Amino acid sequence: MPDVPAMPDVIVVGGGIIGLSAAWQLHRDGAEVVVLDPAPGTGASHAAAGMLAPIHEAYWGESHILRLNLAASQAWPAFAEAMGADAVDYRRNGMLMAAYDADDKALLDNLGDLHEQEGLPVERLRSRECRTREPLLAPGIRGGVYSPLDHQANPRRVVAELLGRVPIIPISATEVSRNRVVAGDGRVLACQQVVVAAGAWTGRLLGVPIRPIKGQIIRLSGPEGLLRLPVRGVVRGSSVYAVPRSDGEIVVGATQEEQGFDTRVTAGGVYELLRDVLALLPGLSEIDLVETWAGLRPGAPDNAPIIGTGDDGIVYATGHYRNGILTAPITAIAVSALVQGREPPVNLSPFSPERFRTSLISTDPAAGTSDQLSEVSA
Amino acid sequence: MPDVPAMPDVIVVGGGIIGLSAAWQLHRDGAEVVVLDPAPGTGASHAAAGMLAPIHEAYWGESHILRLNLAASQAWPAFAEAMGADAVDYRRNGMLMAAYDADDKALLDNLGDLHEQEGLPVERLRSRECRTREPLLAPGIRGGVYSPLDHQANPRRVVAELLGRVPIIPISATEVSRNRVVAGDGRVLACQQVVVAAGAWTGRLLGVPIRPIKGQIIRLSGPEGLLRLPVRGVVRGSSVYAVPRSDGEIVVGATQEEQGFDTRVTAGGVYELLRDVLALLPGLSEIDLVETWAGLRPGAPDNAPIIGTGDDGIVYATGHYRNGILTAPITAIAVSALVQGREPPVNLSPFSPERFRTSLISTDPAAGTSDQLSEVSA
Repeated sequence: MPDVPAMPDVIVVGGGIIGLSAAWQLHRDGAEVVVLDPAPGTGASHAAAGMLAPIHEAYWGESHILRLNLAASQAWPAFAEAMGADAVDYRRNGMLMAAYDADDKALLDNLGDLHEQEGLPVERLRSRECRTREPLLAPGIRGGVYSPLDHQANPRRVVAELLGRVPIIPISATEVSRNRVVAGDGRVLACQQVVVAAGAWTGRLLGVPIRPIKGQIIRLSGPEGLLRLPVRGVVRGSSVYAVPRSDGEIVVGATQEEQGFDTRVTAGGVYELLRDVLALLPGLSEIDLVETWAGLRPGAPDNAPIIGTGDDGIVYATGHYRNGILTAPITAIAVSALVQGREPPVNLSPFSPERFRTSLISTDPAAGTSDQLSEVSA
Repeated sequence: MPDVPAMPDVIVVGGGIIGLSAAWQLHRDGAEVVVLDPAPGTGASHAAAGMLAPIHEAYWGESHILRLNLAASQAWPAFAEAMGADAVDYRRNGMLMAAYDADDKALLDNLGDLHEQEGLPVERLRSRECRTREPLLAPGIRGGVYSPLDHQANPRRVVAELLGRVPIIPISATEVSRNRVVAGDGRVLACQQVVVAAGAWTGRLLGVPIRPIKGQIIRLSGPEGLLRLPVRGVVRGSSVYAVPRSDGEIVVGATQEEQGFDTRVTAGGVYELLRDVLALLPGLSEIDLVETWAGLRPGAPDNAPIIGTGDDGIVYATGHYRNGILTAPITAIAVSALVQGREPPVNLSPFSPERFRTSLISTDPAAGTSDQLSEVSA
């Protein structure tokens, strides 16, 4: 890890994949930067499966998020290459979404219409075609959609790589402004620009409606290559995914629970993951269960991230919800551009931190008011 | 832990609850004793839930095991008292067996006939009566049987108590005879009498048909007193139990798998435990899942333990299968009596190590031939 600069240009508050990527980009762009986090890399990034899936994470009414995610996907090869694609297990073998029963198939067909409307490159598959691509799928599945542009990486390895590349002070922040951070021990740290990438904790630090959305995961371990492709399933209306790593590990996720700052692994959460993934991929039954874990995704009322400079002069990079791993590289480039007065690589206006202050959507982080939100938490 | 004696009277091979209890009893009866185990207390004892349940572990055709288990139950109060009943969480609040559906109820009624024939003190309960005793039970259960004589203790605490009371050499044994043990490092240890309590590993050490029967468990943790009683359920033909500790921990077990010396925790094993226990006790869904574990029960072809002196002069104490925690104290008293030439507290003839050499039952440990065995492993 590089030395902590005595007089940093930029302080990044939050050492998850977003904060670390932003700090690394700033560092590569010539800024003196330091990250503040009492436990870097142990939040949402540690629980993420690492699907880089703009297509299979596309939903009706979220075109602006889809555009960002597609641009993010294109920023990934250079990001992975800079760390070593093998080091972070970056793999571009596509992803399969499969429907368990007839109702699930209807849901998939509905998403298929979205893919068509948005002109996304997908292949609709019948049951047998799904099983040709991924033989581990249950014979009874009703059909699927293969997306060649959806990729994957190992978020824990990405974080490990980044931790070695940026200086970190292992402390929390209790107060922030444009050029000043008060740390948990009372120290006041000054700089030219503060960036806040505090994930689910951003709402506690600043007046933006970001709330924690809990996700429980399990990690399985079996023979290498047992599962060929990342699979996302819709199983009796529930979503479940299984992402294979190159070493035989398979990450299964993820629940979506609105429970506040609760990272307990529960009997019911693990049960639902196992029930749905074994319905979809019964052959995983005999392999090892090696870890259970839970993390907190940062979610805004409209499901979109917050990336931009606020009226308070602070640069925001938070609220990445289900797409933090995917959007880390492009967020990092955007943050560095904002700090250094350059044009961001994408139109950030839909992601402004000011959008909640001028809209009719409630800014109470506990409320969760929009229709889309209710759908997600149902 | 007491000092290792230079010239022990007795060497006990195996430091699970059986070996440790036997060594402690021998020590209390005046013998110089030492236990040999490379990792004492980490085998079947570490995975056991600690049901002390002669009644709810009674099966047709196993009257001799039932007699032993009933005598074992009576030996427990003095055993627990000697260590401190609170220290080992010994509790005598009875145990409930509940049937999930109509077929499960038929199975329970069949066991009820056995209880009647054997004159065992049980109360047959209707669904509502079950839920009065244990409000956490699912409303749909079909009925149950309450057994006031089935108790519980925390096996990990028992082992921890015993580990402080007997001298241990942390090494394996590779060869044993009546008065000699060859240790894993080549050392030869001499004594007056060797006792073998090597659990599932006994079949590898000596020519008795003991095989490992894998059990996976999970530990949950919730508010103290959430679950009042130990509950054993029959859920769609499968057996599952939930044993509450005084500190809010609940041990849920247990699978029965014939997989050789395999202690992997599998996705399918944990799934089945969660599925069955949440069907029976849905209120456990929201509490923490804190551990998954697997151990190997030592099982003989006729499901009965091996307790007695063999023709080889070795004292055997192994094969306790599902009842090792329950039968530890009485096995310990029996072993000490055998070593010291006194009358054992129970008739040990059905449990002789020689019974396999004279019967028609196959002694191939891999075969698993008797009807009862096939039933258990089905």
